[in-house]
Amino acid sequence: MRDVWVIGIGQTPIGELWDKSLQDLAVDALGAACLDAGVEKPDALYVSNMLAGQLIGQKHLGALIAQGMGWTGIEASAVEAACASGGVAFQAGVRAVASGLMDTVAVCGVEKMTDETSGRTVTAGLATAADADYEVDQGVTFVALNALMMKRYMHEHGVPHRVFGEFSVNAHANGAANPNAMFQHAITVDTYLNAPMIAPPINLYDSSPICDGAAAVILASREVAQNLSQVVPVRVLADSTATDCLSLHGRRNPIFLDAARASAFRAYEQAGIGPKDIDLFEVHDAFTIMSTLSLEASGFAEPGQGTRLATEGEIRIGGRVPICTMGGLKARGHPVGATGVYEIVDVVTQLRGQAGANQVPDATIGMAQNIGGTGATVVTHILALE
Amino acid sequence: MRDVWVIGIGQTPIGELWDKSLQDLAVDALGAACLDAGVEKPDALYVSNMLAGQLIGQKHLGALIAQGMGWTGIEASAVEAACASGGVAFQAGVRAVASGLMDTVAVCGVEKMTDETSGRTVTAGLATAADADYEVDQGVTFVALNALMMKRYMHEHGVPHRVFGEFSVNAHANGAANPNAMFQHAITVDTYLNAPMIAPPINLYDSSPICDGAAAVILASREVAQNLSQVVPVRVLADSTATDCLSLHGRRNPIFLDAARASAFRAYEQAGIGPKDIDLFEVHDAFTIMSTLSLEASGFAEPGQGTRLATEGEIRIGGRVPICTMGGLKARGHPVGATGVYEIVDVVTQLRGQAGANQVPDATIGMAQNIGGTGATVVTHILALE
Repeated sequence: MRDVWVIGIGQTPIGELWDKSLQDLAVDALGAACLDAGVEKPDALYVSNMLAGQLIGQKHLGALIAQGMGWTGIEASAVEAACASGGVAFQAGVRAVASGLMDTVAVCGVEKMTDETSGRTVTAGLATAADADYEVDQGVTFVALNALMMKRYMHEHGVPHRVFGEFSVNAHANGAANPNAMFQHAITVDTYLNAPMIAPPINLYDSSPICDGAAAVILASREVAQNLSQVVPVRVLADSTATDCLSLHGRRNPIFLDAARASAFRAYEQAGIGPKDIDLFEVHDAFTIMSTLSLEASGFAEPGQGTRLATEGEIRIGGRVPICTMGGLKARGHPVGATGVYEIVDVVTQLRGQAGANQVPDATIGMAQNIGGTGATVVTHILALE
Repeated sequence: MRDVWVIGIGQTPIGELWDKSLQDLAVDALGAACLDAGVEKPDALYVSNMLAGQLIGQKHLGALIAQGMGWTGIEASAVEAACASGGVAFQAGVRAVASGLMDTVAVCGVEKMTDETSGRTVTAGLATAADADYEVDQGVTFVALNALMMKRYMHEHGVPHRVFGEFSVNAHANGAANPNAMFQHAITVDTYLNAPMIAPPINLYDSSPICDGAAAVILASREVAQNLSQVVPVRVLADSTATDCLSLHGRRNPIFLDAARASAFRAYEQAGIGPKDIDLFEVHDAFTIMSTLSLEASGFAEPGQGTRLATEGEIRIGGRVPICTMGGLKARGHPVGATGVYEIVDVVTQLRGQAGANQVPDATIGMAQNIGGTGATVVTHILALE
């Protein structure tokens, strides 16, 4: 297998982007990534998206977006693993280059959640990540599934709701300095405590927003990358996906993410490192409970201890394991099928030293973990400065 | 890159399978493929599907089907490129093995088109393969787009409608002897000429049916395959995807499939062969016009001459380029996201000499071409007896 480098990154701001179509967003992000990489036309394009079929009646996004970029003719396709789609698309790109089949590859995550022109609601769309027969048909929404996990976690481990607020405070503090974040304002613990309830115990600030956005990366083999002089070399050290039972009730333990454990530890093994070597960790904080469970499964805290990393300030920039360094899903935003690619863009931004006020000092190894459903698909990537 | 072998195939019969869920169908096909290969649990699973999100409110099929097989924990994800999804999933499997990352991989195409529990119609679902903004919003269905192509082809090349009937006659003749085909009866040219019109000039027998089904293959590296003594060795010689403009009006020529030309000729180059070396060709006969255009783009006939291969009997078993040898999309059936995997299963069945009454004599090299939309994504695979 060949070494794979990330040679270009691009993103749109995240928000309610009423004046941009899905194709517009993808083209904006890919255009920025190509400019960054100094690449005009890659050998292939892998797209991640979750909801366009249901919300705007458009599938077949590989060909559509290739056409939008003027890349008609190239190999292009789309992948889907609910909210882990972005991580899976990045993985498809890594493999195309690693196998020797492609020299340069583009990966684009794109989601337009504010359009519902096809008559389906976002809530119904998000629920397709869960088990249609055994969960959704019983009337449980995707937020409600996470609420069940959070409630059980609080009960089992004796953790009060208020401590989860530190995850939201951290995400918003970092989002405040990210010009691409949806929410560019800090909050306090009081903001969190006074937030409206969504599905108890999950309140508004436990939850990531519904939004639009696209992110893109350009990958290349070492040989191609070395001929592009402006590139700060960032290499993919590890690339691992694991799955678990789709429905929550079928899991070994509903408040421990077995798939995240398997995915993260396979990634550590591939990279030849451990959790202590990770300088920053882009977690999948769709809900504050997910940040907690991800940190525990990935070896940064024992079960039941994840929130202590937050309350003790260890998740902040400068702490032991900075998370959501550009605002995370909570403040930067969570355009579901695009999120995994945004996480990679954030890690690369940090490793290149381009994170501005949010820069993690001396960051050389970063990890991104993208989670589908309530933990049924988990994709972990580790990247490092070459 | 490592050599990749197909070591197991499985399929469900195709039809209106009201008593089987999507997961049931996938498990049936994968179970049969694993039994055929002598493999209990592969390293990864790639699923192809187009419509489950829209028709039955279920996405995240990688994890769902892995769970159904008792393979919880393995890497699993889904791909989508409209009706070319199956070919793309097979490609993902080939690359995972070729790259050296995986030793055994399962690929499963599955579609359940007869359930519409989520409130969307199949017709609306199929239209998501076309351009939502520039085609579907104008009221054109997917059948109507193919009708526009057929009408223009008949006009430009002076070809009468009746000659297309030979494609349907051939498909039904072959489907009659395939126990997994949806339509196991022969038809005559008269049946075709008297068929009800769907969207002029496309009639019922120009069109493939709406149906349910799943097909699966197990892939392995040469080293693993050689340790499994019962395997008849079939190797993947070529694997190529190309795209074209999603909307018909944006194409260089609406009645020539540029993406099929690019995909097929790249595949010939990879395999070091030409059209004359192909012993059978599983074309994507979603409509009779598609068979014609596919044969022309892939180098078996000059533009405007494709129907002559049918009228002169060259597409039949025993002819110069047998197509749809197990019934094709028309008679075997077209469960859209599964079709590309069914095509591979049919090619392997022929190369192994297991096609019974439909056996192509001395078949050693077979080709499958899977087409998404009206030709925007085309995936071509060439397989050969080792």
